[in-house]
Amino acid sequence: MVRCPSVTPADAGALDVLVGALEPLGFTCHRLRFDEDGTPPIDNLYARLGGAGPNLCFAGHTDVVPPGDPRDWTADPFAGDIIDGKLHGRGTSDMKAAIAAFVAAAARRIAAKGAPAGSISLLITGDEEGPAINGTRKVLDWLVEKGETLDACVVGEPTNPNYLGEMIKVGRRGSITGHLTVHGTQGHVAYPHLADNPLPRLVRMLAALTAEPLDQGNAHFQPSTLAITTIDVGNPADNVIPAKGTASFNIRFNDEHTSDRLKDWIKRTCDTVGGPYDLKFRVSGESFLTPPGALSALVADAVERVTGHRPELSTTGGTSDARFIKAHCPVVEFGIVGQTMHKVDEHVAVADVERLTDIYEAVIDGFFAPTGGTAA
Amino acid sequence: MVRCPSVTPADAGALDVLVGALEPLGFTCHRLRFDEDGTPPIDNLYARLGGAGPNLCFAGHTDVVPPGDPRDWTADPFAGDIIDGKLHGRGTSDMKAAIAAFVAAAARRIAAKGAPAGSISLLITGDEEGPAINGTRKVLDWLVEKGETLDACVVGEPTNPNYLGEMIKVGRRGSITGHLTVHGTQGHVAYPHLADNPLPRLVRMLAALTAEPLDQGNAHFQPSTLAITTIDVGNPADNVIPAKGTASFNIRFNDEHTSDRLKDWIKRTCDTVGGPYDLKFRVSGESFLTPPGALSALVADAVERVTGHRPELSTTGGTSDARFIKAHCPVVEFGIVGQTMHKVDEHVAVADVERLTDIYEAVIDGFFAPTGGTAA
Repeated sequence: MVRCPSVTPADAGALDVLVGALEPLGFTCHRLRFDEDGTPPIDNLYARLGGAGPNLCFAGHTDVVPPGDPRDWTADPFAGDIIDGKLHGRGTSDMKAAIAAFVAAAARRIAAKGAPAGSISLLITGDEEGPAINGTRKVLDWLVEKGETLDACVVGEPTNPNYLGEMIKVGRRGSITGHLTVHGTQGHVAYPHLADNPLPRLVRMLAALTAEPLDQGNAHFQPSTLAITTIDVGNPADNVIPAKGTASFNIRFNDEHTSDRLKDWIKRTCDTVGGPYDLKFRVSGESFLTPPGALSALVADAVERVTGHRPELSTTGGTSDARFIKAHCPVVEFGIVGQTMHKVDEHVAVADVERLTDIYEAVIDGFFAPTGGTAA
Repeated sequence: MVRCPSVTPADAGALDVLVGALEPLGFTCHRLRFDEDGTPPIDNLYARLGGAGPNLCFAGHTDVVPPGDPRDWTADPFAGDIIDGKLHGRGTSDMKAAIAAFVAAAARRIAAKGAPAGSISLLITGDEEGPAINGTRKVLDWLVEKGETLDACVVGEPTNPNYLGEMIKVGRRGSITGHLTVHGTQGHVAYPHLADNPLPRLVRMLAALTAEPLDQGNAHFQPSTLAITTIDVGNPADNVIPAKGTASFNIRFNDEHTSDRLKDWIKRTCDTVGGPYDLKFRVSGESFLTPPGALSALVADAVERVTGHRPELSTTGGTSDARFIKAHCPVVEFGIVGQTMHKVDEHVAVADVERLTDIYEAVIDGFFAPTGGTAA
């Protein structure tokens, strides 16, 4: 799979490799190609073994970020070379190794104990590193349309910052970006009564937005944060009052907020200062949490049994497609070590891929054990 | 004089024209050329008629700002064309017409009543529109060195915003520009605990600096003002916390402040917010006032007699070389209408130049009248 240069949105044969491994195991494979509004068409895959519930789903993506200049790499980023026990290549960590480990885990389970009394499925997209329009979201819509049900989902993102077994993600903070423009009237600093300086209002709005913590965090989430990322006026003249000033800020928010409530709060805060302004928002995702329970305990137990580490249940870091899946079933994320993801010389330890396979096999076994049907 | 393209720092023969007019009237002319630290050499003139006191000085400048593209002008900016009763050209308003009017006024006075019992002098620089390093300041130093005393000074800047007789300037606000850089540590917005965002501190410093009026103004001055002129970060990435932010601000301050006390206040205000920052200041001038008295009354009476308007005694507007002269003697400013100064199609009404000549002649006569020696 690493040898397929599936730089988003290209598939480059990656899903063919996967289908070639799954069909012999008995999986029914649905290739799902979506395009919308002239965006590049995306190849996705939904594969299922078995027809009965419960349905344990593994979700992931075969698309990867660009490698940059291949000459900066120790090994060809799409050669899949193993050097000193490490599999090198773009997408090894994020997240082809985890897909391979899950398929291997399913194969071992089937070989050892036969297909489970329920279903194992894979939801694989080629649009996670891109705009995420024609990927997981569309596949989930298709599943609903077809009457397919997911009962629990493990997303194979590289969740471990430093070592395998360090961290399971049970949710994510939401993210909203705001672009604020405050308007005034240009003029000469010596005649300020003829001008209307927008900048005192701009700094007062930004000071008000950052005056107090958004919250104190809670049992599962860090405190929400608001970061002013830039303020720009671009006025080179010391004797001129500018006509406008702009600022951008990003909020990473926990489950004590929604993006709509934050938008309202931001507008109210700016209105308190007053004067003409524009606000534009971009919401990357809402916060979500799979409260610690049967699924997170099942995965944590499997991790601990294989690695000896009790993983932290975390909600830190950036967004993932888990934000779409959480509306359908309990979802946790656990994959390989992410230290080199998106970087030059991305790689994974082959031993970690082996241990991740053991972990996924233990998750499958645990899920379908006599009490496993209630793991969700 | 208008036909000499004396775009600062060039003299282009302007002072030769002046000397050619003054020497036949009996003035002793001192051409004073100064240069310092590799700055362009500047031609200045000190001309004096008479050896006794009191010495009434007229101060001005022959240098002009660049005309921009001459094709934007109705008439050649250095042709000195008179069109529909208006003398067109760069520097007509700011301020060659006033110099010519004063020389004509002195000539008429001498012709009518002979040289006064005292001295008439002119202090003319070519470095008012430039850095003002090798101009009026250096001439004043030279005067002190030679034991020359000024007893009163009229600066011929275009002080009338709309019509001749509208405004005399009896002082100016001071001007100080501050450049503030607040330092932090760059990082990812999803991991704010690993970064230190300088922007909340920057906006809090700027909000504190603009929270309250600097003063309420007083009998002779408008309230002092602080204008934030720019804030710049230049961070295009919505997910990155920047390492630093910069801002500039300009304070126009009245005689209730000094630049040193303002610097202290700005530093204390920034220290209240805290964190690492740099501050750089540039002081263009301190505030000053010639309290309304004999000199301003003399000029105001002359203006009213000629124009029928009682002029306002004002301290508004930008800086002028009066800020240097005020340390030597009482100084007021009165000249032509400034509406087109520094603009395309700069011009003055020929009738206004005639009336300004009448005003200056009345000032000279009043100054040297039996009680005039105490006008200062």
